[in-house]
Amino acid sequence: MTENNQIMNTSSASNVLDPDMLRKLDAYWRAANYLSVGQIYLYDNPLLKEPLTLGHVKPRLLGHWGTTPGLNFIYSHLNRVIKSYDLNMINITGPGHGGPGLVANAYLEGTYSEVYPKISQDEVGLKQLFKQFSFPGGIPSHVAPETPGSIHEGGELGYALSHAYGAAFDNPNLIVACVVGDGEAETGPLATSWHSNKFLNPERDGAVLPILHLNGYKIAGPTVLARIPRDELDALFHGFGYTPWFVEGDDPMTLHQLMAATLDAVITEIQNIQREARANGFSRRPSWPMIILRSPKGWTGPKVVDDKTTEGTFRSHQVPMGEMDKPGHLALLESWMKSYRPEELFDSEGKLHAEIAELAPVGERRMSANPHANGGLLLQDLHLTDFVKHAVEVPSPGAVMAEATRVQGQFIRDVIKHNPDNFRVFSPDETTSNRWGVVFEVTNRCSTAEIHDFDDHVAPDGRVMEMLSEHQCEGWLEGYLLTGRHGFFSCYEAFIHIVDSMFNQHAKWLKVTRGIAWRRPIASLNYLLTSHVWRQDHNGFTHQDPGFIDHVVNKKAEVIRIYLPPDANTLLSVTDHCLRSRNYVNVVIAGKQPSPQWLDMDAAIQHCSTGIGIWSWASNDQGSEPDVVMACCGDVPTLETMAAVDLLRSYFPKLKVRVVNVVDLMKLQSQSDHPHGLEDAEFDRLFTVDKPVIFAYHGYPTLIHRLTYRRTNHDNFHVHGYQEEGTTSTPFDQVVMNEMDRFHLVANVIDHVPQLGVNAAHVMQTITDKLAEHKVYIAEHGVDMPEIRNWQWPAHV
Amino acid sequence: MTENNQIMNTSSASNVLDPDMLRKLDAYWRAANYLSVGQIYLYDNPLLKEPLTLGHVKPRLLGHWGTTPGLNFIYSHLNRVIKSYDLNMINITGPGHGGPGLVANAYLEGTYSEVYPKISQDEVGLKQLFKQFSFPGGIPSHVAPETPGSIHEGGELGYALSHAYGAAFDNPNLIVACVVGDGEAETGPLATSWHSNKFLNPERDGAVLPILHLNGYKIAGPTVLARIPRDELDALFHGFGYTPWFVEGDDPMTLHQLMAATLDAVITEIQNIQREARANGFSRRPSWPMIILRSPKGWTGPKVVDDKTTEGTFRSHQVPMGEMDKPGHLALLESWMKSYRPEELFDSEGKLHAEIAELAPVGERRMSANPHANGGLLLQDLHLTDFVKHAVEVPSPGAVMAEATRVQGQFIRDVIKHNPDNFRVFSPDETTSNRWGVVFEVTNRCSTAEIHDFDDHVAPDGRVMEMLSEHQCEGWLEGYLLTGRHGFFSCYEAFIHIVDSMFNQHAKWLKVTRGIAWRRPIASLNYLLTSHVWRQDHNGFTHQDPGFIDHVVNKKAEVIRIYLPPDANTLLSVTDHCLRSRNYVNVVIAGKQPSPQWLDMDAAIQHCSTGIGIWSWASNDQGSEPDVVMACCGDVPTLETMAAVDLLRSYFPKLKVRVVNVVDLMKLQSQSDHPHGLEDAEFDRLFTVDKPVIFAYHGYPTLIHRLTYRRTNHDNFHVHGYQEEGTTSTPFDQVVMNEMDRFHLVANVIDHVPQLGVNAAHVMQTITDKLAEHKVYIAEHGVDMPEIRNWQWPAHV
Repeated sequence: MTENNQIMNTSSASNVLDPDMLRKLDAYWRAANYLSVGQIYLYDNPLLKEPLTLGHVKPRLLGHWGTTPGLNFIYSHLNRVIKSYDLNMINITGPGHGGPGLVANAYLEGTYSEVYPKISQDEVGLKQLFKQFSFPGGIPSHVAPETPGSIHEGGELGYALSHAYGAAFDNPNLIVACVVGDGEAETGPLATSWHSNKFLNPERDGAVLPILHLNGYKIAGPTVLARIPRDELDALFHGFGYTPWFVEGDDPMTLHQLMAATLDAVITEIQNIQREARANGFSRRPSWPMIILRSPKGWTGPKVVDDKTTEGTFRSHQVPMGEMDKPGHLALLESWMKSYRPEELFDSEGKLHAEIAELAPVGERRMSANPHANGGLLLQDLHLTDFVKHAVEVPSPGAVMAEATRVQGQFIRDVIKHNPDNFRVFSPDETTSNRWGVVFEVTNRCSTAEIHDFDDHVAPDGRVMEMLSEHQCEGWLEGYLLTGRHGFFSCYEAFIHIVDSMFNQHAKWLKVTRGIAWRRPIASLNYLLTSHVWRQDHNGFTHQDPGFIDHVVNKKAEVIRIYLPPDANTLLSVTDHCLRSRNYVNVVIAGKQPSPQWLDMDAAIQHCSTGIGIWSWASNDQGSEPDVVMACCGDVPTLETMAAVDLLRSYFPKLKVRVVNVVDLMKLQSQSDHPHGLEDAEFDRLFTVDKPVIFAYHGYPTLIHRLTYRRTNHDNFHVHGYQEEGTTSTPFDQVVMNEMDRFHLVANVIDHVPQLGVNAAHVMQTITDKLAEHKVYIAEHGVDMPEIRNWQWPAHV
Repeated sequence: MTENNQIMNTSSASNVLDPDMLRKLDAYWRAANYLSVGQIYLYDNPLLKEPLTLGHVKPRLLGHWGTTPGLNFIYSHLNRVIKSYDLNMINITGPGHGGPGLVANAYLEGTYSEVYPKISQDEVGLKQLFKQFSFPGGIPSHVAPETPGSIHEGGELGYALSHAYGAAFDNPNLIVACVVGDGEAETGPLATSWHSNKFLNPERDGAVLPILHLNGYKIAGPTVLARIPRDELDALFHGFGYTPWFVEGDDPMTLHQLMAATLDAVITEIQNIQREARANGFSRRPSWPMIILRSPKGWTGPKVVDDKTTEGTFRSHQVPMGEMDKPGHLALLESWMKSYRPEELFDSEGKLHAEIAELAPVGERRMSANPHANGGLLLQDLHLTDFVKHAVEVPSPGAVMAEATRVQGQFIRDVIKHNPDNFRVFSPDETTSNRWGVVFEVTNRCSTAEIHDFDDHVAPDGRVMEMLSEHQCEGWLEGYLLTGRHGFFSCYEAFIHIVDSMFNQHAKWLKVTRGIAWRRPIASLNYLLTSHVWRQDHNGFTHQDPGFIDHVVNKKAEVIRIYLPPDANTLLSVTDHCLRSRNYVNVVIAGKQPSPQWLDMDAAIQHCSTGIGIWSWASNDQGSEPDVVMACCGDVPTLETMAAVDLLRSYFPKLKVRVVNVVDLMKLQSQSDHPHGLEDAEFDRLFTVDKPVIFAYHGYPTLIHRLTYRRTNHDNFHVHGYQEEGTTSTPFDQVVMNEMDRFHLVANVIDHVPQLGVNAAHVMQTITDKLAEHKVYIAEHGVDMPEIRNWQWPAHV
C-alpha cells in the first residue's frame, strides 16, 4: 500500500497554470457549460441578447445536467495536455447522458460545424445547436453515434472501461481517457473491467487513463463509491493495480490548478511507463495512474431551487428546474446562464473568441475529430490467406469425421499470423475448449500479470484475450472494432446471453451509423457460438440455451446475420465471409465434437454462397415433386436428419424424400423482412407448396415458424428443436429428450405423409422399441448404443 | 490500511486442533475426497475391495476434480465450527461444477440417504452414489436443485455472492458461507457483488462469510486474482470493505490448523460485530471478515500424469486422467483413491465409521438439511391488505388519467408495511423514477455506507434495495426468494436484458425443482418492467427494447407468466395475483406516465381473471359478427387502439368493430403449449375465424405471430408493434415511427376490410395528411399536437 495518497499539494499545484492560462481555461470550461445549459433549456435567444422569456425556453425540458459540468471540466483539461504534450487522445464518456457536454465541446472545437454545416459557428448555428438537442428531428440526448468523437453512447451503463481498453490495444501511440461515473461504477461489467490492466502491454498497446468521477448520486440515491472512506477508495484502486490520484473540491480555480498539476504528473507517468517498456521490453505490469475526481453534482448550477439544495445533490441529476412557469425559475435560469459570462466568451456574432478557441487542439488532435473515434477511417482489410487450404477432404458425403471448430481454428491461426497488429480473438477462457488451440502455434494468451513456468501459452504479447467475463470479452472487442480493427469472439452458446444487452447496444449503434454519412463502416462483430445446446449433455441443463438467435433476430435485419454451417468446410467458408464483411453482427453456430463431414470444399463454397439448398445427393426426388421435405439447420439437426433419411430409405424405399439444408438462417425470412430472404417463388420451389416439411432446427422451434409464417407452405411445417429439456446425459439422449432425434423425425414423417401403406404401423412400433432400447442401454452403460455412435451415411449414390 | 495482513501465525495456530481432532477432521476430508473421486470415476467396486479393473471404471468420465478437494476442505471445517459454536449456517458453492464434493458431503451427513433412500449408507448405496453421478438417469454434474443443501447450482458463474447476501437479508441468525472461485471472481456480477456489504445491516440481517478460493486456474488459463501480489489482494479486499484472512499452503495438516484457527477468529469476529450492533443499534458499517484460501488445484490428486505436472495446474480442472486404457492410468487411479485410506474411513459394509461421522452437525444444523436451503419449508404467505382500496375511481372508460405504477406503489407500500421482515423491493436506483416513491412513507433506501443529511430516504434499516446493478438486484432477490421470502424487482424495460442469463438460470432451477418432491414451492420472482419502450422517447434508442418478453417465452411454459395490464386497476389486480403465486416468474409490464384509465375495479378484476376479453363498451358489434377485430395488448397499444376505434367510428359509423384486450399474454398460445392458453373454440369466438384482426402489441410483432400461428384465423392477423425504430423524440412520434399509432391502425383497417365504400380513399388521404402535419408540428414545437395530447375516449355509450 502507499503510505500517503496521491494528492497534489494545493500550494505546489497552484503554479501550474499561469494566471492567463487559468483565466482562459476557465473561460473555455464556462463556454462548454453555457452551451450545455443552452442545449437543455433554450429554444431561442441563444446569446441572451434579449431578456429571457418563456418563449425562449423549450416546451419540453430533457437532458441531464448533473454530470455535465464535470465532463466539461475534464474535457477542457484534457485539451490542455493534448496541446502541451502533443498527445493522440480519444475520450470515452461513461456517463453518456451528459451528451450536451460532449456536443458542446465538439462544437467549440469546430468539428461539429464541419460535419453538420447547418450548425454553424455563429448565432444562427448556436440557436440550431440549442434547439436540436433532444428535440424531434434533432439529436439524441446521449453521446450517440451522431456525436463526433464518440465510440460509446453510454445509454446503458457498464462498458466504458472495457471499450477504452479495447480501443487502446495495438494502438501504442493512443491514450484513451475514460470517464467512469460513480453510478456506472456500481455495475458488474464496470467493476470487473478495472482488471483490464492485467491485459494491457505498455510495449505494444496504448494507455488508458481512467477518471472515476465521484458525483455522489445516481438518479435519486447516493453512490457506493462516494460513500466509503478515502482510505478504502485508495486501497480499492491500489488493489485493482492502479495508482489513484485524487482531485477533490468545489472551488473552480483551486480545482483547475489541482487537475492541471495532476494531469501533468499522470501524463508524465504514462510516458515514463511506455518509454521504459519500449526501450527495454516488457518486464513487469506497471501500476498505471488513474484519477479520482470528486466534484459536486450539477457543479456551477443553481445552488437552491424552490428552497431545496440542488447543486451537489441528486436534484441536479436531470434538469434542476423542470417547470419553468413556476415563479422565479426563469430568472434563475437567466442568472445561471449569465454566471458563465457569455459576453466574455462569444462575440456579438456568436463566435467563440479566438483567444479561447485557440485552447483547443487542432485537426485530428481534436478528440472530436480523432480518426480513432471513427474507426472505419483507419480500417484496413485483413490479410486473408486462402481458407481452402484448410479444407477437410471429403471423398463422399459422411465418409469422414472432423471437429469443425478445430478446422476453423487453423484458419484463425493464419489470420492471427498474417495480421499481427489488428486482429485478436476474445474468449472467456474457452479458446482451447472450443478447439481453437492451434492458434497457440503463433501466439499466446495475453497476460501482463504474474506468469508461471507451467502455464500454457501465456505471455504479455499474446493476442488471445481470455478473461472469465463475457462482458469484458464483448466490451474489449467492441472497443477494438470501433477503432478500426478486426476480431472474433468465441463463446459457449448458452452463456452468450450474458451479453444480450451489450449486443443490443452494439446492434443499435451499427443501425444508427448506417444513416450517418461521415461514419465509415467498421469490421463486423463476429461470434462463434460453440459448445452448443446439443453437446452440453455433460454439463447439463444450465449449459443449454440456443436462444441468442431469437434475441438477435429482433434487431434490425440490415445489421444481423446468422449462420449455422453443418460441417467444417461450410464453417470455413462462412468464417472467410464474416471476416470480410462490414457493419454487421455475424453469429456463427458450430459444434466442436467429431461429426460427419458432408460437403467437399467446392460444394461447401457453393452451398454457403446460396445459403440454402437442396442436397440432391441425399434426396431421391430427382426431377419430381417429393413426398416429404426433410429440412435441417445446424450441425446436429443435419446429422439427425441424415440418419432419419437413411432410416426412411430402408423403411420406405419408394418414398420420395428431398433434403434441404439451411446455412444462412435469414434465407427463410421474406425478402421484404431481410435482405437475404428468399423470394417466395424460390422458397416454394425448395419447400413445395403443399408437402409436409419435417424441419430439424438447432434452436427453439418457434423461431422457424416466426420466420416462415408468411410462406405458402407454412401450415405444413413441423419443426423439431430444443424444447428446454435436458440434464446430464448422453449426446443422443439430449436430442431424444427434445424429440429432435432421427426416430422422432421418422415418426413425424409417418404422421404427415399419408401414402406410406401398411408398413407404417410396423415402423412406428420399431421406432418406439428403439427409443425404449436406447433408454435402457444408456442407463446401464452411460454411453449411447453402438448403432447410434457408429452410424454412418451410406454411400447411396 | 492494515499494516500487516491477517494471517494466523503457523505456530500459534498449531494448537487449535488437538491431535485427535486433527486426525478425525482430516479423515472426514479424506472421506469426502474419496467419495468425490469415486463419483467421477467408478462404476463399481466402490470400496476397492477388489483390484481395480477397467470394468470398474465408468465408460465416460465426466465431472470436475480441480475445485473439489478445496470445497471439501472448506465444508469439513465449516462443519467443525457449526458444531463448536452451534451455528445456523448454509453454504453457497460458487464453483458449482465441484458437484461431487457437495454430493459427497450431503451423503456423509446422511441427508442424501434421507431424501434419496436408494442411495443408502452401505456398499450398495455407495455403488449407486458413484454410478449415478453425471450418468444418464442419474444426477447432474453441478450443485443442482437435486443436491440437498443447495440454493445455487453454479452452472453459470457470477452470482454466488449476490445469492449469499440475498439469503442473509432478514435472517439475523443465519451465517451464509459463500465460496467464490477465482474464475467466477473475474465475472462482472461477482466483481460488483463484493459491495453488498454496504447493504447488510448486522442488527437485522445475518452474516455472509465469503471464502475466495484461489485455485490458480480457470479451464486452461491462469486466474487474475491468483496472479497479483498479496499486497494488492489485501488492498483490494480492504478496499471492498472487508478484513481479509489468508490461509495459504499445500500441506494438509498445516492448513487444517490454519483454517481452524482462522475460522475460530472469523466466527468470533462475526459474533462480536452482531452482538455490538444488536446491543447498541447500528452505528457504522463494520469491516466484515472474509477468507482467502489459496490451495492447489486438484489438491491431493495425481501429482504427475503422463509426465505432466497435474496437481496444482489447469490439468486438474476436469478429470486428471481421461483415457483410462492408457498405460498406468488405472494403477494411478487406484493408488490415488487408496491414498485416502478408505479402510480407515468406511467399515466393510461401506458405512462411515462412527467416530468420523459424528463430526458432522446433526438434524437441521447440517448444511445439507438446513431449511433455509429449501426455502419453501420456511415460506410464509404475505399479509396482503385488500388492493381494492387503492382503486382508481373510473366513472366511465377513459374519463380519468392516472399513472399506473404510482397507484401500484401504494399497494407495494402496504405490503412493505405489513410484512416488515420478509418482503423487500429491489431496483437499480429507479424506485422513485418508476413511481413507487410512496413506499418511502414506510421505509427507506437501504445503506450501511455513509449517509448525508440531504440524502433522500436513505437508512441502514431501509427495505428498498437500490444498487445500480441489475445483476445485483436480481441476485439478491433470487437469494431472498430461494430462502423463503418475497420480493419485487422494478426495472427499466430495456435494461432487464442485462439479466437475461440470470433469468434463464432461475427459470431452469424452478423447472427442475417442480420435479423434486422434497423441494417446496417458493414465492414467484416478480418483475415490474416500466419506463418501457413506448415512453423512452426522451432517453432515446438505447433505452428502447421490449424483447425480454420474447426471451422469457422460450422457457418452460409451466414456469413463466407475462402480464400487460392496460391501466392502473388491472395492474393492481395483477400485482395481487403475482404476490400470491408460487414457483413462477411473473413479468408485469406497465407504464408510469399519466394515461387514460379504462376499467373500474370490478371490471378490472373480472378482466384480469379471464386474462383476455372483449371490451363490449368499446365495441359496436353487439350480438353479431364484427367486420374487424381491434386487438390490443399493453397500455400504449390499448391507448392507440382506442383512439383508432374512435376515429373509425367517426369515419365509418357503420363498421362493426370489436375490441379485444389482452392482459395475460399466454392466453394467446395454444392450450397444449401453455396452461393459460385459450382453447381453440374460445379463441375463435374472440377473434373470429375469418375477419381481419388489427393487433396493436407492446413488443416485437413477430411474438404475436409466434404465439398464434396455429390458430384458425392467424392468416388474418396484422400485428403492429415495435420495429426497432426510435430516437429522442415525442411520445406520439415514438408510436408513429413504429407504425403502431392510431392512424396507421386505421389505415390497416382500410387495407383489410373490403366493404368500406368510397369514403375509404378520402380517409386514407386524411390520415396521410395528419401524419405529415404531426411531423411538421413536432419539429417546430417539440411536443405532440394538442389533438393528440388531449385526445379522450368519447362517452359513446
